[in-house]
Amino acid sequence: MRVPDIADIRQAASRLAGVAVRTPLLQFPTLDARIDGRVLIKPEVLQRTGSFKFRGAWNRLSQLSMAERRAGVVAWSSGNHAQGVAAAARILDIPALIVMPKDAPRLKIERTEGLGAKVIFYDRINEDREAIGRRIAADRGAVIVPPYDDPDIVAGQGTVGLEIAEDAGRLGVALDAVLVPAGGGGLAAGTALALGAAMSDAKVWCVEPQGFDDHARSLAAGQRLGNEVGRQSFCDALLAPMPGEFTFAINAARLAGGVAVSDAEVAAAMRFAFEELKLVVEPGGAVALAAVLAGRFDAAGKSVVLILSGGNADPAPFCRTIAG
Amino acid sequence: MRVPDIADIRQAASRLAGVAVRTPLLQFPTLDARIDGRVLIKPEVLQRTGSFKFRGAWNRLSQLSMAERRAGVVAWSSGNHAQGVAAAARILDIPALIVMPKDAPRLKIERTEGLGAKVIFYDRINEDREAIGRRIAADRGAVIVPPYDDPDIVAGQGTVGLEIAEDAGRLGVALDAVLVPAGGGGLAAGTALALGAAMSDAKVWCVEPQGFDDHARSLAAGQRLGNEVGRQSFCDALLAPMPGEFTFAINAARLAGGVAVSDAEVAAAMRFAFEELKLVVEPGGAVALAAVLAGRFDAAGKSVVLILSGGNADPAPFCRTIAG
Repeated sequence: MRVPDIADIRQAASRLAGVAVRTPLLQFPTLDARIDGRVLIKPEVLQRTGSFKFRGAWNRLSQLSMAERRAGVVAWSSGNHAQGVAAAARILDIPALIVMPKDAPRLKIERTEGLGAKVIFYDRINEDREAIGRRIAADRGAVIVPPYDDPDIVAGQGTVGLEIAEDAGRLGVALDAVLVPAGGGGLAAGTALALGAAMSDAKVWCVEPQGFDDHARSLAAGQRLGNEVGRQSFCDALLAPMPGEFTFAINAARLAGGVAVSDAEVAAAMRFAFEELKLVVEPGGAVALAAVLAGRFDAAGKSVVLILSGGNADPAPFCRTIAG
Repeated sequence: MRVPDIADIRQAASRLAGVAVRTPLLQFPTLDARIDGRVLIKPEVLQRTGSFKFRGAWNRLSQLSMAERRAGVVAWSSGNHAQGVAAAARILDIPALIVMPKDAPRLKIERTEGLGAKVIFYDRINEDREAIGRRIAADRGAVIVPPYDDPDIVAGQGTVGLEIAEDAGRLGVALDAVLVPAGGGGLAAGTALALGAAMSDAKVWCVEPQGFDDHARSLAAGQRLGNEVGRQSFCDALLAPMPGEFTFAINAARLAGGVAVSDAEVAAAMRFAFEELKLVVEPGGAVALAAVLAGRFDAAGKSVVLILSGGNADPAPFCRTIAG
C-alpha cells in the first residue's frame, strides 16, 4: 500500500467538501486559563455521524466503481467507523454490512442500523471480527472497508490535520503539538501526514487508555507491540489489540510519541467537557483532553490542538460519568 | 436611552475581540435532513461563561470609568447574566454583587461565585429582585448592570447578529429567518438591529416557553403585556415577567413575531442536541431548536439560523431530561 501524500489528502478534502462537516477550531478561555497555555479544540464530535470516521469512509466509498457499489461493502468496527461507513453507503446507495461487538454502546448500534446498514454481532473476547468480516465479504463478493489499514481511509482522516493547519494558520498560531486519540492509528497517521506537509514544527502525539497503550510502547520500541490480554477500559472506541501495520509504518516515522491516561482521568475530562466546553464527548474521544487536564502531557506555555474524536455516548453511562 | 445602531454594535465587536469567543455557525446534515431545510446553529453555549450574556456584560463593564470600577457593579439575573457580569468584572478587577433567585440551577450559582462575585439570593415568587438590587447599588454607590434594558447591553448582544450575518454571507446563504430565545428581549433586539443593517431580508423571530410568551402576545398586540402569574416552565433563563421597556421599543419595530414551545418540546430538543449535535444546551437555550423540531416554526425549504443561547445545565436535571 502506498503512503498517502499531501496531494492525496487534498483530493480527499475535495471529495468531502459539501458532504462532510468542516469542523471549526474552537477556543475556550477557561481551558487556556486552566492549562496556562493556548489550547485549541478540534471537535470531531460535530462531524457527520458524531466522529471523524465519516471522513475516511467517504473517501474510500466514493471512489468505488459502480460494480463494486452494487456488490456492497463490509466493515468491522466498535461503532464509529460503523456509522461512518453506513452513512457514506446510504448517501451512495451501497448495501453495507457491519460486524460490531455485541457489547458496543447501544447508541452506536442503533445509529448504525438507523443509517440502513445490516449489523452482525460478535463476541469481542472469543471471536475474531476481522475473520468474520473477511468471510462474509468473500461470500458476497463485497468490498472490505478496513477501519484504518488503508491508504484512502488514512487520507480521509488526514483532512482533520489539513483543517487544523489551515485554521491555526488563520488564527496566527504556530502549533507546538497536536494530541490525537489512537485506536488503530488511522487518525494519527493522517493527521501527522497532513501536518508534516503544512506545519512541520508541530509534533503529533497519540493518546491512549492505560492498558491499551500499544502505540506508546510500540513507538518507544520501534516495532509493533500488542496489549496485554484481559485489560479493561471504558474507552470502547480505542480497544484495538495493536497498532495497524500500515498505519504504524507511517506513525513510527512521524509521531513524537504516545501518552496514556486512566479511565478516571477520562471521566474527569468528559465532566469538564460537559460543564465548561458544553460538548458531549464519548470516553475514547476525550483522551487527548484528559492527557492535558491530568498533566500527562504538559501543555503549559505551549500552543496545542486536542482532537475530540467522537461523541457517540449512551445517555445512561454518560450521565453516570458526568455525575462523578 | 438611545437605540444602538450598527456602528455601536461594531464598536462592541471591537471591544469583545480577543476577550469573548467568536462562536462559529455550525451545519449538521442530520438536522437539515430532518427539517428539509437549511438550518444553521449559532452555538452561544460555546461562549465564555456558557451563554451569550458575556457579550453585553463586557460591552458595558469595559466602558466604566476608573471611579465606577472601584465602586463596583450590581446586577440581578437568573444565572447567565450573573456569570457574564461576574466574568467581565473579574477580568477588569471590579467588585461584583449579583442578586439571584434561590432556586437558580446550582451550576449557575457555583459558577457565578467561582468567578469571584458575591451572590445574594431572593425569593422569585415573593420578592422583587430589581428593588433589592437597586437598594444595594444605592447603598454602595455601585453601578447597576441591567440584564437587558440598556443600550450597551443590547449592542453587546447584537454582536451575535453581526457574526451570523458575516458567517452566513461567507457560506453564501441568504437567510430567511433567525430564531432567538427571548426572556427580557435583549438578544432579540441586538440581533434584529445587526441583521436589519446587514441582511435586511432575514426575519427575526423570538421563541419563548408556553406560559411565558409575553413577547409573542405583546408583539401581536403592539404593546407590552405581562405573563399570567403562577405559570411554570423549566426554562429558568426565560421567565422574565414581561418584555423590557427599552428592548420592546426595538423589538416591536423589528421582530416578525413570536413562537411558543412547551417544556416537553424543549426536552425533546435538548435530547436531540445531545444525541445528534453533541451540544449541551440548557432548557432556555433550546427553545429555538424546539420550535423548529416540533414544527411550531415551519423551516422546510428555508434557510434559518437557530441561536442556542446557553448551556449552563445542572448535570442531574439535564440527565433526567435526556433520559426521556
